[in-house]
Amino acid sequence: METELSKQLGIEHAVFGFTPFPAVAAAISRAGGLGVLGAVRYTAPDALERDLEWMQQHTGGKPYGLDVVMPAKKVEGVTEADVEAMIPPGHRRFVRETLAKYGVPELPEGEASGWRVTGWMEQVARSQLDVAFDYPIRLLANALGSPPPDVVERARGRGVLTAALAGSAKHARRHAEAGIDVVVAQGCEAGGHTGEIATMVLTPEVVDAVDPLPVLAAGGIGSGAQIAAGLALGAQGVWLGSIWLTTTEADLHSRALTRKLLAAGSGDTVRSRALTGKPARQLRTAWTDAWDDPGGPGALPMPLQGLLVAEALSRIQKYETGPLLGTPVGQIVGRMTSERSVREVFDDLTRGFERAVDRINRIAGRS
Amino acid sequence: METELSKQLGIEHAVFGFTPFPAVAAAISRAGGLGVLGAVRYTAPDALERDLEWMQQHTGGKPYGLDVVMPAKKVEGVTEADVEAMIPPGHRRFVRETLAKYGVPELPEGEASGWRVTGWMEQVARSQLDVAFDYPIRLLANALGSPPPDVVERARGRGVLTAALAGSAKHARRHAEAGIDVVVAQGCEAGGHTGEIATMVLTPEVVDAVDPLPVLAAGGIGSGAQIAAGLALGAQGVWLGSIWLTTTEADLHSRALTRKLLAAGSGDTVRSRALTGKPARQLRTAWTDAWDDPGGPGALPMPLQGLLVAEALSRIQKYETGPLLGTPVGQIVGRMTSERSVREVFDDLTRGFERAVDRINRIAGRS
Repeated sequence: METELSKQLGIEHAVFGFTPFPAVAAAISRAGGLGVLGAVRYTAPDALERDLEWMQQHTGGKPYGLDVVMPAKKVEGVTEADVEAMIPPGHRRFVRETLAKYGVPELPEGEASGWRVTGWMEQVARSQLDVAFDYPIRLLANALGSPPPDVVERARGRGVLTAALAGSAKHARRHAEAGIDVVVAQGCEAGGHTGEIATMVLTPEVVDAVDPLPVLAAGGIGSGAQIAAGLALGAQGVWLGSIWLTTTEADLHSRALTRKLLAAGSGDTVRSRALTGKPARQLRTAWTDAWDDPGGPGALPMPLQGLLVAEALSRIQKYETGPLLGTPVGQIVGRMTSERSVREVFDDLTRGFERAVDRINRIAGRS
Repeated sequence: METELSKQLGIEHAVFGFTPFPAVAAAISRAGGLGVLGAVRYTAPDALERDLEWMQQHTGGKPYGLDVVMPAKKVEGVTEADVEAMIPPGHRRFVRETLAKYGVPELPEGEASGWRVTGWMEQVARSQLDVAFDYPIRLLANALGSPPPDVVERARGRGVLTAALAGSAKHARRHAEAGIDVVVAQGCEAGGHTGEIATMVLTPEVVDAVDPLPVLAAGGIGSGAQIAAGLALGAQGVWLGSIWLTTTEADLHSRALTRKLLAAGSGDTVRSRALTGKPARQLRTAWTDAWDDPGGPGALPMPLQGLLVAEALSRIQKYETGPLLGTPVGQIVGRMTSERSVREVFDDLTRGFERAVDRINRIAGRS
């Protein structure tokens, strides 16, 4: 599965695997794809450094990438306390009441919430970059808008390709103007932040919009047939995130969540603002229902919502509160029905791709 | 573009074109696909008979099909007046006020609304079938649920394949149990009634769910690359509806609507209950916004909503009231940027398919 882009990156298969887990990212790279480590969880640069060091030792010399969250809009001199002060008391009460309704215990004294809003702030992303550029990353992706011009410049100077996610042709053109090397066209069926346009429609639109830049198809891809479909649509590769969540190398910190993912069908996700304030596809839970309920206070805009719910999400995850327990995941969750190693998943993808190519050739009368 | 199903139907290309316009359906069949005429507009059997007679004379002996709307739930002895009586006065007032706000004139005295709820009622669909079975239709599709067992039986006796639309694997399995021959997996990006699962995810799920029954991929398909993607996903053909709306053979009765379709982007549709009471993708307009507004009365359930808005839609269309003017259409509306003949569109589809196959073979290292 070879395209201009995969050749440029020196990978065997044009399969890009996004994951927050170093062990998964490294296994994807070893299997012949490009493992892309999501950095949003790292608020301390030394934690990122430790994990990149680990990646370096476990990718067998294969290329890998990093995904940061660097918001397009610069927020100068704003502290977390400033942002905290913007949250209405009624919303805090709603969080308390919802947690109480489901009997979610408090965190033990001294235990901080895992996820902090700071991971979304530019200064944090920049300190992550200072660390990352010390490692031979081959791709730097930005999950939210285009990275600033100096970052694009810095990456280019080091031979690192830059990528950015787009949910519409308009966003994709903006990335192209910002000098991005690769656009990830992320359809509405994808996990995490998405627009409303499906991969089937979005991919060729983005390909046309940024031609000759390479495009990766993302959203709804978790099998070899879906990879073939994404590539048929004009993509130079595919970007998969959800499918790795139930691999044996993934570390969700919750068996209950893994079981929930394995049991969920394609209709069990929802595009909700409950998590970050921007629409993101995730498991539909009593928690997302509460925030999406027209009778409730509704989610706050980014970054307020993320800050508001950070501690609550840590508690829900720690105590595995069944009805509230969720995670960002795409509609292909319906295909994730057993725990397998990254290698098994990857081999299944490449074999399925070959079968889909056989099939399409038979239909086209070429075999 | 040949599959088991296309061979069984005796068509050159596994492209199924759904359209309410006989001239479009006939042109699709002549071009080598299967034109499927939508019958919901025909409330009088003689109008359907006249158009099928016309089809018979203009398809050049090529096969064609018919699409009826036969609700799964039987409503015995209910008249249109009974249904009318169930509509709350507040909803009637909202219709009047919304039309007044945009200055939509009344219909001239004696001019009836074109669309009636009766087209959705079983007795009408059955009288349509009595007519249709006199013609050599090759496929009988049902747009809403599985057709009743006796209809499936009757079709089988005459060598007519039956098809039904499904928005989930569960619906698809129900169709298979009802003895349907072909399942149309319709993704959320499609025009008209849709579920929430995208074509990329839905197609392989439905293929697996009803194996070995043939599946058509529908939703988001308006180019040869999208056809290749649909077939790579395991479908035995593709079902296209929206793309024909701006062909020169289509008769939308409104130049303003044609212009609106040609100008719309993929982000200009919405899945709304405004039209029929069930979620259907359509152009987003001030009319859909009014019904989707949480501050408004909201749409009534099917069939009440269709009956409630029938006259209003006739008025909006007749007087081409720009902000309110809409039609069911899928996200591929963004690709419909010029009026072309059905033949031009069809040739573009088959050429694009061949290019996509070339492309996928290059990526797979087979050329």
